[in-house]
Amino acid sequence: MRTATSAGRRPVGGLTAGVVGASGHAGGELCRLLLGHPEVATILPTSRGDRAFDAVHPNLLGAGLAFLDEGGLRDRAESLDVVFFCTPTGEAMRQARHYLERDVLVVDLSADFRFRDPAAFQQAHGRAHTDPELLSEAVYGLTELRREEIANARLIANPGCYAITAVLALTPLLRTGWWRRDAPVSVHAVNGSTGAGSEPKTAVMHAEMTASMLSYQLSGHRHAPELEEFFAAETGEPVVVDLNTAHGDFARGIHLQANVHLAEGVSREDLLARYVDAYGAGHDGEHFVLVNTRPKVGARDEKQYDLYPRLGSVVGSNFCHLGVDVDPERRIAKVVAVTDNLVKGAAGSAVQNMNAALGLPETTGLRAYAL
Amino acid sequence: MRTATSAGRRPVGGLTAGVVGASGHAGGELCRLLLGHPEVATILPTSRGDRAFDAVHPNLLGAGLAFLDEGGLRDRAESLDVVFFCTPTGEAMRQARHYLERDVLVVDLSADFRFRDPAAFQQAHGRAHTDPELLSEAVYGLTELRREEIANARLIANPGCYAITAVLALTPLLRTGWWRRDAPVSVHAVNGSTGAGSEPKTAVMHAEMTASMLSYQLSGHRHAPELEEFFAAETGEPVVVDLNTAHGDFARGIHLQANVHLAEGVSREDLLARYVDAYGAGHDGEHFVLVNTRPKVGARDEKQYDLYPRLGSVVGSNFCHLGVDVDPERRIAKVVAVTDNLVKGAAGSAVQNMNAALGLPETTGLRAYAL
Amino acid sequence: MRTATSAGRRPVGGLTAGVVGASGHAGGELCRLLLGHPEVATILPTSRGDRAFDAVHPNLLGAGLAFLDEGGLRDRAESLDVVFFCTPTGEAMRQARHYLERDVLVVDLSADFRFRDPAAFQQAHGRAHTDPELLSEAVYGLTELRREEIANARLIANPGCYAITAVLALTPLLRTGWWRRDAPVSVHAVNGSTGAGSEPKTAVMHAEMTASMLSYQLSGHRHAPELEEFFAAETGEPVVVDLNTAHGDFARGIHLQANVHLAEGVSREDLLARYVDAYGAGHDGEHFVLVNTRPKVGARDEKQYDLYPRLGSVVGSNFCHLGVDVDPERRIAKVVAVTDNLVKGAAGSAVQNMNAALGLPETTGLRAYAL
Amino acid sequence: MRTATSAGRRPVGGLTAGVVGASGHAGGELCRLLLGHPEVATILPTSRGDRAFDAVHPNLLGAGLAFLDEGGLRDRAESLDVVFFCTPTGEAMRQARHYLERDVLVVDLSADFRFRDPAAFQQAHGRAHTDPELLSEAVYGLTELRREEIANARLIANPGCYAITAVLALTPLLRTGWWRRDAPVSVHAVNGSTGAGSEPKTAVMHAEMTASMLSYQLSGHRHAPELEEFFAAETGEPVVVDLNTAHGDFARGIHLQANVHLAEGVSREDLLARYVDAYGAGHDGEHFVLVNTRPKVGARDEKQYDLYPRLGSVVGSNFCHLGVDVDPERRIAKVVAVTDNLVKGAAGSAVQNMNAALGLPETTGLRAYAL
Repeated sequence: MRTATSAGRRPVGGLTAGVVGASGHAGGELCRLLLGHPEVATILPTSRGDRAFDAVHPNLLGAGLAFLDEGGLRDRAESLDVVFFCTPTGEAMRQARHYLERDVLVVDLSADFRFRDPAAFQQAHGRAHTDPELLSEAVYGLTELRREEIANARLIANPGCYAITAVLALTPLLRTGWWRRDAPVSVHAVNGSTGAGSEPKTAVMHAEMTASMLSYQLSGHRHAPELEEFFAAETGEPVVVDLNTAHGDFARGIHLQANVHLAEGVSREDLLARYVDAYGAGHDGEHFVLVNTRPKVGARDEKQYDLYPRLGSVVGSNFCHLGVDVDPERRIAKVVAVTDNLVKGAAGSAVQNMNAALGLPETTGLRAYAL
Repeated sequence: MRTATSAGRRPVGGLTAGVVGASGHAGGELCRLLLGHPEVATILPTSRGDRAFDAVHPNLLGAGLAFLDEGGLRDRAESLDVVFFCTPTGEAMRQARHYLERDVLVVDLSADFRFRDPAAFQQAHGRAHTDPELLSEAVYGLTELRREEIANARLIANPGCYAITAVLALTPLLRTGWWRRDAPVSVHAVNGSTGAGSEPKTAVMHAEMTASMLSYQLSGHRHAPELEEFFAAETGEPVVVDLNTAHGDFARGIHLQANVHLAEGVSREDLLARYVDAYGAGHDGEHFVLVNTRPKVGARDEKQYDLYPRLGSVVGSNFCHLGVDVDPERRIAKVVAVTDNLVKGAAGSAVQNMNAALGLPETTGLRAYAL
Repeated sequence: MRTATSAGRRPVGGLTAGVVGASGHAGGELCRLLLGHPEVATILPTSRGDRAFDAVHPNLLGAGLAFLDEGGLRDRAESLDVVFFCTPTGEAMRQARHYLERDVLVVDLSADFRFRDPAAFQQAHGRAHTDPELLSEAVYGLTELRREEIANARLIANPGCYAITAVLALTPLLRTGWWRRDAPVSVHAVNGSTGAGSEPKTAVMHAEMTASMLSYQLSGHRHAPELEEFFAAETGEPVVVDLNTAHGDFARGIHLQANVHLAEGVSREDLLARYVDAYGAGHDGEHFVLVNTRPKVGARDEKQYDLYPRLGSVVGSNFCHLGVDVDPERRIAKVVAVTDNLVKGAAGSAVQNMNAALGLPETTGLRAYAL
Repeated sequence: MRTATSAGRRPVGGLTAGVVGASGHAGGELCRLLLGHPEVATILPTSRGDRAFDAVHPNLLGAGLAFLDEGGLRDRAESLDVVFFCTPTGEAMRQARHYLERDVLVVDLSADFRFRDPAAFQQAHGRAHTDPELLSEAVYGLTELRREEIANARLIANPGCYAITAVLALTPLLRTGWWRRDAPVSVHAVNGSTGAGSEPKTAVMHAEMTASMLSYQLSGHRHAPELEEFFAAETGEPVVVDLNTAHGDFARGIHLQANVHLAEGVSREDLLARYVDAYGAGHDGEHFVLVNTRPKVGARDEKQYDLYPRLGSVVGSNFCHLGVDVDPERRIAKVVAVTDNLVKGAAGSAVQNMNAALGLPETTGLRAYAL
């Protein structure tokens, strides 16, 4: 049962949060963030495995958390304010109703509730949705762009890490209308090895991945339709998204570059102005979305390396850093966006959504800067 | 001027902190931690270079900090509660008195005030100390072991990253008296590349360091005498410390292994008990020093990898994780300690010391777990 | 003077090779390869610095090489069979004529001779060419595609690492004519940190680059015109190339993905067939260009990771591995190409060109597989 | 059947080599080296898995190798000159006799034949040896120190990677007699992730290992007895070896530091002289064991980083680089040794042993320098 709150929902006492599927990377990260959240008093993580919590997540040694089984959590649903699903596809849609009926806010980090249309879900995931009624109720948890709906939601579908990063990178540009309709928008994203899940498999062994890089799913990434649906809704026009993905030699983070063909002459300054408009600057702007506005320098100036965000600048934080440029000769706009795939790309956005839905300041528990 | 505080010093309003030499790794990390510190309202970083603050520390984009020059900070000394020195050897001893005279707490992260004896300083650093009077007043900022003195200090000498990690690793064992007096205590520490400073040099270029490892200063590390002085004071006996150091392929963190020859038969359980006694367990223990007490497993059991702390478990946090073992056949005790060289090894300890000296709870602003 | 050879040029005795600018990454790699070349008896490297050869290149300890100064090498030009330039832009065009006049084969790894047209050089490099006559004589050293000309060349312009990889990736596809003329060909390449040169600079320090990724020169990469010129010559049509580059967390290697919009429906099998035609398979094919022909598997099959080449599979070798795929819904062909930027992308191609020009089997000294 | 050779054994035609257990890291590396060996005509690798050879070893794409099953290889034993075992403990002792009876040289890379005494084997490995007669015949394959025996061997026990590196590091020093008998020799070795085997397991997933470091088996490493036996034989005295091991964030290589307490005053120059005596310098010395003899510099001189070998300088090669130093105050000699754990530590030594046993020059097929 969600705690009664002053401003509609704002919790008076400490919150109790369940985390279903907390033995994976996103679940562990969620526990880490909730441990630092000043309004969360109790965290109840579940796991189907048999390793102890602090053996699975040795970074949380001393935090005093222990795994429950899923049945144990379900039995305590009445005492929860919020439950997060960090489960493989199929689990959240099977279990969400149980918690919703007990007035628990549900934030699903899996792909179960990301489409409005059951047919779109079926096409992307190759199986039927088992609770299509909830599907239509779920709110797409892209906080910066769906803030109003999230504030009133009881079921939030957290977008995937590629989708969050690509949406933040592309939305201001697509809203300008400056783009060529006859050419796909291309997205090239390099993700850390945590993005490949926590199950041991040969392709993501250290000996295979270190000092290497590996593309995957180039014939049509299964998260592209999610992006196409979002941008169509946002612009009122069909948008074709060519999503290209790879794993790089780092544990965390997404380095994403989006290229958009321009229908007219646009300068870097024009483009920057639109991004600053969209996300603001300084205290009036979005706290978590920051645009690098440094002026252009020559190719021999070492400061050229300061023009675009570097991945390392956001790892461990809920920030998305953006940089933009234009190739004037070839008329292509370029946007570089970096996020931590486990924070802004998953657990951080989930907490941000929880905050928004419970009437807390969005940045609560999420103020840490990257290392 | 230090703000008046309730329990002698506890600040009523927000604190103002100066950071001298904030363009390096430790200075940037200190700014990061102070930005998340709930009692710090104003941060004044200085730099002698000409790059903008968020070009030097792109992870702090959006935080609104800008560099002053050192003179500018000195002129504002009256308004400061605390000043941190993240400067090369020689600067803090030249400038500390200016701030102390204006009742500003001084926390020095450089090596200037780590020895009591000016002669020892001179021997270790090859130059005379320019303010030996202050040297005798400075308190050695190993928080867990010098808590009382730090609470009353106005000048705190933050130990180096190797020293902090080695002291936490070895003190409980040396206190037992179980060790052979005729053999040196050996310490093997592998540090991240941030430990080599932020000046560009060939040896720590990415192309040189990645997938590699490099020993240095094996003929007698200049931090060994600092450890020998500390352990002599702690045990009342001479202790010879053989400190061996290398750089590994990671940006942050110290992985340290200390080996101590035993004078008598001691089991892993005996040793573990002493560490748990020293640092406590759960809520009664030291918050930042955690001992891994998992039981021994066979060499073919995959859980053998859970016995000793892994470096990654502390990076980004103020924690020190400890694991112990004994080679019964060769009578050698082994202690593995991991810390983040920039947090517990530098900026985190500095903030912990500031908290202790200002009467704040020690964990204020330092509760983040590692990624 | 080039040694007399049986089949026109084949050397009877051992070859003598000069390497101008051997203190950088490409120069060191060239020395490494020449040391393993069975027909090379003497290697004469030059450097302007004062560090010893095996301090600069500690991997070549024991090889017995020492630096000369450039004047010393020039004085010995008569005794050389081949000279390689691994120098910054401007040096090779100043010095080449001296060696050519003494009948020394010149292989230039810098950008000095890559354009036919002095104006194109001036536009790309912002300075006038100082020996335009030689420019028109130079042969573009893309061995697999310019074999005949190279066999008869006395001045070879080795292409840059991005160009070599992109040309091998795209040529078979562009030759099909299946591509849309109204959309640029896009190339996204991630290069190792050796690609940023050997001068210490902050942006490529280990602490900055590790676990990170950084884009650069997105407003129009200065190697794009070189590619556009090549493809125009190859296809007889204008080709617009959108070249996007970044540095990744590895010392060596280029992971390149090229996307081409298709004018018609083409299957992965169609495309694979053209690549196999172009480069051959097994003993009849190109030795150094290998196409991955494994059949498609489902997205949940772990073997999906075997479909595209991984960067690690070529590092240290002269191979280029290729993989292709098609997004049928969005009609985009995708080609993944991986090379070692210092071998196939620089020193290996230079040796391959030397072999071709001297009448040696192309694979001489280049047979090593990647680690 | 081993091919008839001129000097007793020198093969007239091409050699045929079997590799049992070629799907792991050492087996793959052995295939890579044999492919570059000018006297090896045919390579027959076996695997129990079902993945294709070039999916398991994508770096060997194009080499034309395919897996046999073990039975298939046994049936062809008559045609083999040499067989290598890269198998888990227990396999080589079960199969070796079959090949020996057919006059095939057996080189075992597993631990099966490393002890002379079946009891020592049983104690170290917890199981009885199944062919103790062969055990007494096997020659310990530390090429540089057992050259004569290896030349006449038909069964060679390749030492483990830690043992090879530690023996090369310590033997010249232990031979001096300068060491204290009352203190163990300590060895601290950091190994790459390939040293943890090729089976997927959580502890060596990329996301766990990258930017981290992890100690293991500190209570007595199972390779320490092998070293103690060797050094006892070498010096005629008992030697206690304290072997400490960890995994670092690199795929390949061992960075080993050995510390030895000195009974008398010894300078770095004294020690260096003994190492140069032992391994020689230049053309008269050991080809694969190189001692860094650069003179000492001050701690502020950047050249201090050139004093000890860096791991990266040997990766991919059969070299062992050595550096030595002395802490004069604490009377401790220090030796740093670096090797590639899969080359000099495994497959390279195996080929070197094969060369020695077949009467070939030892460096045949092993001349590559590190990248």
